[in-house]
Amino acid sequence: MTSGGDAPGMNAAIRAVVRTAIYHDLHVYGIMNGFEGLIKGNMHRLEKGDVANIIQRGGTMLKTARSAQFLTSEGRQLAYESIQSNEIDGLIIIGGNGSLRGALDFTEEFQLPIIGLPGTIDNDLYGTDFSIGFDTAINTAVDAIDKIRDTADSHNRLFFVEVMGRESGYIALFTGIGSGAGNVIIPEVESSVDNLIHYLQLAAKRDKLFSVIVVAEGSKLGNASELARIVSEKLPYTETKVTVIGHLQRGGSPTCFDRVLSSRLGYAAVEGLLQGIHTKMAGIINDKIFFTPFQDAISKKKEINPELMKLVNILAL
Amino acid sequence: MTSGGDAPGMNAAIRAVVRTAIYHDLHVYGIMNGFEGLIKGNMHRLEKGDVANIIQRGGTMLKTARSAQFLTSEGRQLAYESIQSNEIDGLIIIGGNGSLRGALDFTEEFQLPIIGLPGTIDNDLYGTDFSIGFDTAINTAVDAIDKIRDTADSHNRLFFVEVMGRESGYIALFTGIGSGAGNVIIPEVESSVDNLIHYLQLAAKRDKLFSVIVVAEGSKLGNASELARIVSEKLPYTETKVTVIGHLQRGGSPTCFDRVLSSRLGYAAVEGLLQGIHTKMAGIINDKIFFTPFQDAISKKKEINPELMKLVNILAL
Amino acid sequence: MTSGGDAPGMNAAIRAVVRTAIYHDLHVYGIMNGFEGLIKGNMHRLEKGDVANIIQRGGTMLKTARSAQFLTSEGRQLAYESIQSNEIDGLIIIGGNGSLRGALDFTEEFQLPIIGLPGTIDNDLYGTDFSIGFDTAINTAVDAIDKIRDTADSHNRLFFVEVMGRESGYIALFTGIGSGAGNVIIPEVESSVDNLIHYLQLAAKRDKLFSVIVVAEGSKLGNASELARIVSEKLPYTETKVTVIGHLQRGGSPTCFDRVLSSRLGYAAVEGLLQGIHTKMAGIINDKIFFTPFQDAISKKKEINPELMKLVNILAL
Amino acid sequence: MTSGGDAPGMNAAIRAVVRTAIYHDLHVYGIMNGFEGLIKGNMHRLEKGDVANIIQRGGTMLKTARSAQFLTSEGRQLAYESIQSNEIDGLIIIGGNGSLRGALDFTEEFQLPIIGLPGTIDNDLYGTDFSIGFDTAINTAVDAIDKIRDTADSHNRLFFVEVMGRESGYIALFTGIGSGAGNVIIPEVESSVDNLIHYLQLAAKRDKLFSVIVVAEGSKLGNASELARIVSEKLPYTETKVTVIGHLQRGGSPTCFDRVLSSRLGYAAVEGLLQGIHTKMAGIINDKIFFTPFQDAISKKKEINPELMKLVNILAL
Repeated sequence: MTSGGDAPGMNAAIRAVVRTAIYHDLHVYGIMNGFEGLIKGNMHRLEKGDVANIIQRGGTMLKTARSAQFLTSEGRQLAYESIQSNEIDGLIIIGGNGSLRGALDFTEEFQLPIIGLPGTIDNDLYGTDFSIGFDTAINTAVDAIDKIRDTADSHNRLFFVEVMGRESGYIALFTGIGSGAGNVIIPEVESSVDNLIHYLQLAAKRDKLFSVIVVAEGSKLGNASELARIVSEKLPYTETKVTVIGHLQRGGSPTCFDRVLSSRLGYAAVEGLLQGIHTKMAGIINDKIFFTPFQDAISKKKEINPELMKLVNILAL
Repeated sequence: MTSGGDAPGMNAAIRAVVRTAIYHDLHVYGIMNGFEGLIKGNMHRLEKGDVANIIQRGGTMLKTARSAQFLTSEGRQLAYESIQSNEIDGLIIIGGNGSLRGALDFTEEFQLPIIGLPGTIDNDLYGTDFSIGFDTAINTAVDAIDKIRDTADSHNRLFFVEVMGRESGYIALFTGIGSGAGNVIIPEVESSVDNLIHYLQLAAKRDKLFSVIVVAEGSKLGNASELARIVSEKLPYTETKVTVIGHLQRGGSPTCFDRVLSSRLGYAAVEGLLQGIHTKMAGIINDKIFFTPFQDAISKKKEINPELMKLVNILAL
Repeated sequence: MTSGGDAPGMNAAIRAVVRTAIYHDLHVYGIMNGFEGLIKGNMHRLEKGDVANIIQRGGTMLKTARSAQFLTSEGRQLAYESIQSNEIDGLIIIGGNGSLRGALDFTEEFQLPIIGLPGTIDNDLYGTDFSIGFDTAINTAVDAIDKIRDTADSHNRLFFVEVMGRESGYIALFTGIGSGAGNVIIPEVESSVDNLIHYLQLAAKRDKLFSVIVVAEGSKLGNASELARIVSEKLPYTETKVTVIGHLQRGGSPTCFDRVLSSRLGYAAVEGLLQGIHTKMAGIINDKIFFTPFQDAISKKKEINPELMKLVNILAL
Repeated sequence: MTSGGDAPGMNAAIRAVVRTAIYHDLHVYGIMNGFEGLIKGNMHRLEKGDVANIIQRGGTMLKTARSAQFLTSEGRQLAYESIQSNEIDGLIIIGGNGSLRGALDFTEEFQLPIIGLPGTIDNDLYGTDFSIGFDTAINTAVDAIDKIRDTADSHNRLFFVEVMGRESGYIALFTGIGSGAGNVIIPEVESSVDNLIHYLQLAAKRDKLFSVIVVAEGSKLGNASELARIVSEKLPYTETKVTVIGHLQRGGSPTCFDRVLSSRLGYAAVEGLLQGIHTKMAGIINDKIFFTPFQDAISKKKEINPELMKLVNILAL
């Protein structure tokens, strides 16, 4: 099952789950539309051929949805009945924070081995260095900023570019370093508008004529539009523009890194279930598979490497 | 000189102008920052090597700006003095509507042979089938929608995607056909919200679960956000999302088509000046070079092919 | 039916054929594997939903093959029987030269309205400005050469890059202009190794330190490897490298241009059959739909614009 | 200095070195053409603006070359004199195995602090999880195979795709997993043609109609063409095709991962020199900077993770 927001690489993970399971002579069912489909029993048997030629596709062939019904105990009861009537012995859920929380709630009420896979472009789950879709999302954002830089450079403009990440600055930070941004505004690091203005004044003094400021969705200084407005007021000679990259960050053919990560995690999830592991999320830390309890995966805070934030400031000017 | 908004392919055109001119033993100067640089005499001699390895680059190596000063007769007087003191015998301007209008005004006051090249992603200039940058812009927009479609498909959502084109629906129309959009809203074609609702109701009836509606910036029904709001009110069961593709449409490495077009036009501009042609825009119509008077290029209306609009409707459902 | 080599945009054309036909209340069958599938009756009904979400996909959902059996009159007899038993009233074939020739042979023996669509990256069919897949192929080749240029530039090397086109230099010519190649070797234009050596000596004299020479598969001077060897012998101080771009030119998501072209042609094919047109290929010339007899489409020579060849030489140095 | 084969990300590393050095009030000189330029004193001062807008560019702005002269002790003597006369206090070399070996030889004869950065798409240097350019190269190869898969799928063909890696199978292994290859042939893993034939027979039995086999340049079973010939003889019903991806793997705009890696390593190199570290290569292992003696970096063997090879086999069918 895929659940929550889709992320590039989910199809590669599904392929790996299906093929590893069949390699072990297991039967696999694909559950459509996340918990919603589980409740409705919307699922079908998957064979090896059903996952051929999908490793390169964005989105998820199992579709995904947020289920209001699953948040109720009646909904979860129906889901469990569906599991029993379909003789399901174990469940693999690919999704983000909310999906793993739903899985945790479910296992507290009902007996069912569940393994989760970190499927979220935000990379905000504890227990894995990178989550499925993150690498693709930062490359999409960097490509977009490369295009914006062409026009920023031609016009000597200041661009505020907003990338995804409501609680987490990972996308913004990597995108910012990768695109040579002048500054990065993320929720994890205290920053003030004064610092930003100070940077921009320095930049102007050194005749750096255009800049891109990368802003995480969850910025505490205001979103990209608000920041642009504030800067325009304080530095009226600056021509500011705003681009919100938006949903295209969720799509696209996954990068090689995301395909390899997804393949390894899909394989690990099946092996884990066979070894009796459950209520845990499979992740890769320092190139090794680790299983982290759902509770830790969703509640422990993944720290931003402070070296990276320092790097932005040193390389910007 | 490049002027107005930048467009992918401008560098390829500059390369062609420089190399064709030197082939004819002419001296070439690159004027920086459009009319602003002309006024200030900000220009430098270009040799063949200066335009090496730029054919693939977005933006413009000569930068571009809008010049308030050039709109005044004092500014134009200064520009003319700069032309005389630098012994310039002819001028090639790559830009859009506003730039050619500026050139026309200039030639009405001063004697100087000027040839214009259509450099605008909007493709709204009369006298050429396609303008420099259009093909790249529609491919950028289609790539973005391909990514959005992954996530739209995974979530069964309705996406409103806004593309550039303030006066012209060319980008929206080609992007819409190329991305298999459900509907296209452009300034040239009268359309009503009722038609859009009607389409969406039909789509829902046929179980078409996701759709992308492409909206030109200059839509007379409201921009993408406004349309999404209206539709959400009328079809409350629909989950709508909005993406404004924005400035990344102006950037990026030009497509092969744009590079070939720009190379041919750059060559034609120099040949045209040598043949005594002036106050005209070089364009390609039916694969042949044509020179169109500035007045016609900027004021005559380029018609949208009604067959293409019909195609959107037939292929959408 | 798709036939012969695949080309990006074939799926977009299939989508347009299916949806236009259903718009006219016709039944549509997709024939698998070209003439081979026709002979075996390997076909199935297509509904609108079957062609959803394929406009962006390379390859062809109907697969394609070359059929030895169809070259025999027994094979064609079987194909006709399959047509009769499946009550097919008209056939649309998307393919290249060989496919249209097969169609022509077929119509000389049996009564069946057939319309062809030009589906070949080679762009060598008379009766259309561009064929389905050409624009994508030249962009793929130009992207590849952009990457090669990075390394050529870093190392001051001479690269011979071979692109597809056995009888036709269209791909090589457009790719060459688009990639700023030093020279283009195509079957249509008489060229000698001496000219190439002369260019390279000039380039060396002007300190142009790296160059890319684009060679069409059908080059009469020898393929890329042979040319590299000859040049290495005559100019021993030159470090030469060879890249054959190969089959990746046939694949990839189609460009916007190819999607629009394919959509228009698919629509035109259905409209043509309904108007009683047959034994003709639909093409677009000067932005208008034209129907060209198969005989002309496959035997008349499409001329290379000599201006473009001249452009290569002027812009190279 | 960049040396040896170029790799995407070298420019990002140069940018980081220059900006970090100037942040510490150091003077930086860029040495052109590797050791060749060092010998000739071909170097120039770099300021912050000189490395603006290069983070996204493939190749290396400092160019690179292999120097025969530096292999002689006379050459190295000249290089040292150039270092003295230019008052160079420390050297940062970005390159692969051969470049670090050259640096090691140099430090054994002359006193000069040198830090190396792993710049090679092959990822064969001990002391870093990934080298600069590897991630871009595998994405380029995977993109190419995605395109080939379109046509392989449409034609039911068997493709042998050769990727770079003379001594190392890293590129082939990651590319193989990322592209869903049927098999991967790499120098590190003993494999026999029989195994390959066995896989292909199984694939045929299960109606897997097309496959891509990824072959490392350094394959001990023969290169892609030889393997294709052998397979054609043993399985004559199989239609085989060969593509050698070639030099385009070295070029292209670096991925976000490569830009971040290069930025971190460039920063680390300068910090390392300031801390008195020398004759070591900076690398990143488990997300932390490590300095590895040149001797180890070039002679210790980096192991292929056997889990990954297993993954290929399980997921292929």
